[in-house]
This record gives sequence, C-alpha cells and structure tokens, in this order.
Amino acid sequence: MSDLSRDGARALDAADELRGFRERFVLPPDLVYLDGISLGALPRSTLVQIGRVIDREWGCDLVRSWNAHDWINSPLTLGDKIAELIGAAAGEVVVTDTTSVNLFRLVLTALELNPERLEVVSEAGNFPTDLYVCRGATDTYGRGRRTRVVPRAEVLDCVGESTALLLLTHVHYRTSEMYDLVAVTREAQARGALVLWDLSHSVGAVPVDLNAAQADFAVGCGYKYLNGGPGAPAFLFVANRHHARAGNAICGWHGHVRPFDFTDDYEPAPGIRRFLAGTPSIIANSALEAGVDIVREARVERLDAKSRRMSEYFIELVETGCAGYGLTLASPRDVSQRGSHVSFAHPHGYAIMQALIERSVIGDFREPDVMRFGFAPLYTRFEDVWIAANELRLVLAQKGWQDPRFAVRAAVT
Amino acid sequence: MSDLSRDGARALDAADELRGFRERFVLPPDLVYLDGISLGALPRSTLVQIGRVIDREWGCDLVRSWNAHDWINSPLTLGDKIAELIGAAAGEVVVTDTTSVNLFRLVLTALELNPERLEVVSEAGNFPTDLYVCRGATDTYGRGRRTRVVPRAEVLDCVGESTALLLLTHVHYRTSEMYDLVAVTREAQARGALVLWDLSHSVGAVPVDLNAAQADFAVGCGYKYLNGGPGAPAFLFVANRHHARAGNAICGWHGHVRPFDFTDDYEPAPGIRRFLAGTPSIIANSALEAGVDIVREARVERLDAKSRRMSEYFIELVETGCAGYGLTLASPRDVSQRGSHVSFAHPHGYAIMQALIERSVIGDFREPDVMRFGFAPLYTRFEDVWIAANELRLVLAQKGWQDPRFAVRAAVT
Repeated sequence: MSDLSRDGARALDAADELRGFRERFVLPPDLVYLDGISLGALPRSTLVQIGRVIDREWGCDLVRSWNAHDWINSPLTLGDKIAELIGAAAGEVVVTDTTSVNLFRLVLTALELNPERLEVVSEAGNFPTDLYVCRGATDTYGRGRRTRVVPRAEVLDCVGESTALLLLTHVHYRTSEMYDLVAVTREAQARGALVLWDLSHSVGAVPVDLNAAQADFAVGCGYKYLNGGPGAPAFLFVANRHHARAGNAICGWHGHVRPFDFTDDYEPAPGIRRFLAGTPSIIANSALEAGVDIVREARVERLDAKSRRMSEYFIELVETGCAGYGLTLASPRDVSQRGSHVSFAHPHGYAIMQALIERSVIGDFREPDVMRFGFAPLYTRFEDVWIAANELRLVLAQKGWQDPRFAVRAAVT
Repeated sequence: MSDLSRDGARALDAADELRGFRERFVLPPDLVYLDGISLGALPRSTLVQIGRVIDREWGCDLVRSWNAHDWINSPLTLGDKIAELIGAAAGEVVVTDTTSVNLFRLVLTALELNPERLEVVSEAGNFPTDLYVCRGATDTYGRGRRTRVVPRAEVLDCVGESTALLLLTHVHYRTSEMYDLVAVTREAQARGALVLWDLSHSVGAVPVDLNAAQADFAVGCGYKYLNGGPGAPAFLFVANRHHARAGNAICGWHGHVRPFDFTDDYEPAPGIRRFLAGTPSIIANSALEAGVDIVREARVERLDAKSRRMSEYFIELVETGCAGYGLTLASPRDVSQRGSHVSFAHPHGYAIMQALIERSVIGDFREPDVMRFGFAPLYTRFEDVWIAANELRLVLAQKGWQDPRFAVRAAVT
C-alpha cells in the first residue's frame, strides 16, 4: 500500500528524475491537464523554433530556403528523429500528411504488395478513422478487395489465406489496451499477411520496437505525446525490405526521384522519400520537431517507467477513494498490457467528466461511457494525478454530475 | 512608348493605389523578389497570428480550443474566405491537405460521378504533380480507368465520349498561358465531361469566377500568391450541385457527420466538410489565413490590374533593353491570355537566372530553358520590375552566365 496522501504525491514528484521537463512546457496554473493523449501540451521551445523558421528562413531567405535551410529534407530528417522513438532505422520513417492519408496510402501499398489476397482485417472499435479510411481504400481499389472488421478477440483467428493486411492500433484509444506488437506481427506474418500498426496512442509514451518485431508498416500522430501542436503532421514507417517494391498511390512531385526536373512521367525516389506527395508544411514540421526533440532528450524508456508508475498510482487512488460509486476500470489491470492512459467506465461518464473539467481537471470522454485520463510523463506530476483522483471522488460524492446541463455532448477530439 | 527610365518606374509606384501593401510584408532590403509564384513573401501579421494561436489557444486552452476557438471549423471558415477570391459560394471550398492529395481525391470523386466513362484527359507539360497524381488515381481505381495526356493544342478535341474528367491548370506554371475558364468548362461539359481546374498559379493574382463558369471542381495552393508560407495547406472546391452525390475516397474522421461519436461506420458530413480526412493543422491554417486576409483586403480585381501593368511593363523593358541577346518571350503576348508571371526562354536560361540571383534578383528557372519572373502585385514595385530588367540586361551584356559554376542544377520549388 502506497502513501496515498497529497504529501505522498509530492514525495513521488521530488524523486522523479523527469521532473525538470515540466518547466519546458506552457501549462496554465491550477489546471490539471490529463488529455495529452488527445492534444499534447505546448513546449516553450515551439514558438522560438517556429519564429526562427518564419522570420529568418521564410522572411529573409524566401524560396532559397528549400536548399539553404534544407527544407527539402525536413520530412526525412524529422522522420529519422521519430525513427529513434519507435525502433526504426534511419531512412524508414518520413513525416508527411495526416494519419488518415497515410493509412489510406499504406493500405493501398499493402494491397499491391500482396496481390493474391483480397482482404484487410481490422478490429471493431478500432480508432474510427482507421476503419473509415481502410474501407475507403479497399472500396477505391475495388477488384474484390474488402475490409473485414471483426471483434478484438477474434482478430488473429480471422487472419487467413485471404488476408492481405492486418491493420491494428497498438494502444487502444478508448481502453488503453496494448497489443503485443512482436507476437501479433509474427503470427499474422506467419499466415502470409502484412501488418500495419497505428502508433498514434503509443509514440512518445510507450516503447515500440518496430524492427525487433520485423513490422511491415506503421503510421502515427504528431499531436498527442509528441506535442507537435493541433493537427501536427503525421508520420509513416515502411520497413527497408519493402522499399524496392512498395509504391505510393498518391504519387506527388515530392516523391519523385528528381522533382525539379518537371518531367511528365513519374519515377519514384529511392527509399522512403517516395511516400511524400505534395509540398511539406515547413512551419508545421518545425513545430513538431520542437516536440520530438524533447521526447528524445527524455528518452522513451524513462517516460514509460514514469507512465507506468503514474497509472498504477491513479488506479490505486481511484479504487481506494471512489469505491462504491459505480466506476469500473476499463483498462487492463496489468500495467504491461496498457499504454499511458487509464480509462474508467461509468454510466454517467459524460456528466462526470464535464464536472471534472469545470473543476479544472481535463480528461476526456469517449462514447459510450468511458472517461480517459492520459498521463503525459513529460509534464504530468504525481500531484496532478492525486488531484484528479481527489476531484473525481468529490464529484462522485456530490453527484453534481446529474445536472442536466451536462447532458449536452460537445465536440472534443 | 512608356517612360522606361528608373524615374519612370518610381512614378508608376507613386501612382499605385496598392503601394501601401508592400509594408505589410517582410522583404529583405536590396532584394528584388520575383518568385512569389513559387513561394509568396512573409506577411508581417503571420507571426502575430500564429503566436496568438500557439500561446493563447494551444498553450492556455489546450484541447478545449477545438470548441472554444472554433478550431473545428477553421477549414471551412478559411475556405469561405478563399471562396470569395475564386467566385465560389460559401460552403463550396475547404482548406485541407496538399494540392497533390486534393487532386488525387477529386479525380476519384469525378470517376465515381461519371461512372460510364473511362478516361481522364490532361495536358502534356501540365504541372508535373497533376499528371503524376492523376495517373496514380486512375491506376489505383483500375477497372479500365486511364489518364490520357495530350498536347495542349489538342486538349479539347480529345474530350469525347470516353472522357470522365478534364484536368487542367488554369495558368500554366511555365509559360503563364491562361485558359479561358468559362469557354473550356462549357465545351468540355457539353461533351459530357466533368472539369477539374488547378488554380495554384491563379488564385490571389488573377480573377477566377468558378460559378460563372459553372465549374465542377477545383484545387489550389496556399503558398504562392496567397502567401500562406512554405507548404501551406491547399484548398479544394466542389460545386454545390455535386455535394449530394460527390464522395471522398479518403474518408477520414473529420469528414464524418458526427466525428466525435466514434462509430465504426462512416457517414459523410453534409456539404463540403466531407472532403476533410485527418485532423487539420491549426497552426498552418492560421498562417494561411494571415495571407488570405491581405489578398481579400487588396481585392483581386485591383491585384489583377496592377499585375497586368507590371507584366506589360516588364516585357517592354526587356524587349527594348535586351534586344539581340537571344531572349524569346515564352508567355502569351496578349496580356489577357496570361497570368501574373512572365517567362522568357534562352538556351542559357539556367545560367542567366543563377547570375541574376547572385545579383539579388530572385526569379526562377524551369526546364528546359525558361526563366520565370513572377509579379506579386501586393508587394512587387514597378521599380523592382525595372531593376530586374536592367540586371538582366547587364548579365546578358557581360555574359557572366557562361561561368561553368552555373552548370549545376539546384533544387528550388
């Protein structure tokens, strides 16, 4: 049994080797922000870095910056930095477009690489855009291709002779449940399928080793634990062994081997560059780089260790302090099976979360009944975790969440 | 015959009703920047606007800003502002992704809307990404669909019973030649084809009236005459009459009618919102908005009038001052048939342009032999035009452009 007092939380913070990183972020005073899984906080370095790109590079050097400041390679150099966080090699990751667009193109890439097989298998309740885009890609491709969405428990059993690709999200956005990336990849590949991992809710918070798993493809999001800002560019990974044959259906000029020859015929660049299409957003890449640099400095294994301690602590606080109020842990109890957020279900979860937000504890709600609490180990303190659990207890005790104002749903990503 | 002296240029500037707008941009002293057609200059308001979005909205209000600062609607509200510049109605334009991705998705949209027809017709020498992406889209769709690339002079003749879509760029990136958007649209539609216009080299510089032309689709670029910054988000237009039936193959969650219900099944939002896919970049949209607001304030018809005067003036200066040096006007002589840039061809065009750049006159070069001079009427002065023509004369007279250093090609967008 831990010391569950507020002083106990402060003692944990005092002993936290990552505690100095919090100062690197802008965080409003008196706000407990537990929604870094939706939108990461603002690094203090972001505006400085963007300011340099805008004032000096764009403003002074103008179009010459594509070479003078190596803008042209920013999707690759930033990709190499992210590669370090997910067990990929240099040249296997590129920053481009959005997670949705990257999913779309890599589903098509996989269909082309596995042409005898007709099906993409994914999981019911996967992050919605993954399912929408996957169906969009198989419908567009046509020729008998289809997306098959099956219950989580049956996913691997459904990977069979007709499966071209298995598309899964490593850490589940709602429950935080985490797949064994190595085991699932191996098993699906043994059945002849390629595997595409969505790392949006993993990268920057839990260890990922794509090459240890011999993964084929991955995508991920820049605006959650990488703190790249709202709608930050996304990234994609394609294993080196596929580069020679893997194509990009959205074959735009920045993926061309010589984009500035302005020829009518497309010839893909060697390697990961071919997965570019349009002109990369240099300002958005710059903001993302500020966030990624902090994660690299903190190191994923230290972030993961702190995240585990925080989520264990939160579960213990809630289950001790809020017993009898109808909360159900909606995340795996085994810390090794979950990501960096913890979810509790409650029939009035929406109203309870609104009440918490009014009390300056920001988590979020996911249909139908799940309250998510995201622990971003770069800037979340153990005292924040304590306050969140304590406010949850107070809200539940007051039953203020039954206020009819809270019945209205609001859009929050 | 005009007054072709430098004082004459200064007199034109003194009489220019748009002259005050130049101060709204950051421009290095002593630089003559004639490449706004590749990357527009930096508005002074951009960093202020981005700073507000980053510091106050992202930094303080964090994830709540999706509602509190209406981030969720920024692709549409910004789209409505761009709509004013291109003769579209509110709700017909959305800011999203890149021009390449938007071309890809709208080619697919058109194939679905015109299902009995197999071909997309486009023009040899069109902007390369248009051709690359179009072929990528028809190849991906398969089922007999193909991209047919024909010489410019034969484009309309090649629109026939098998043409599902005609894809053209309104102002040609190399020559500045401008299509008659109304006449071409009418003629192609009369033959049963849909028409997709790429407005990348038009928007913000020349008048476009999509609805007067009853155009079907358009895309355009944010980082040229709209001054949205390197790799700014692009936009797309879909005519209202197509909204009920037009689908988006890249059907991501932000195009869903209720994205925050997190349901497994995709149901497109009504109207233009369905053409969104992933999470929009709020920082990049904010930078683009700063640029668009200045164009709206200046008004396209005034920009167009100034642009015409500048390009006429430049041609007169060059043809007077540089006669006998082997330059050939590579743009239409009739001002009503060209956009806001002027191109001259020369066998040593690359070397000459490098020499000009060394002398602080920034234009650009496009294979095989074209020097482009882009006049951005918001910030280009008549005196800049005069200096550019004068430096061109001096370079040609010295033949410094034969220096072998200039034989190396460099990547510049």
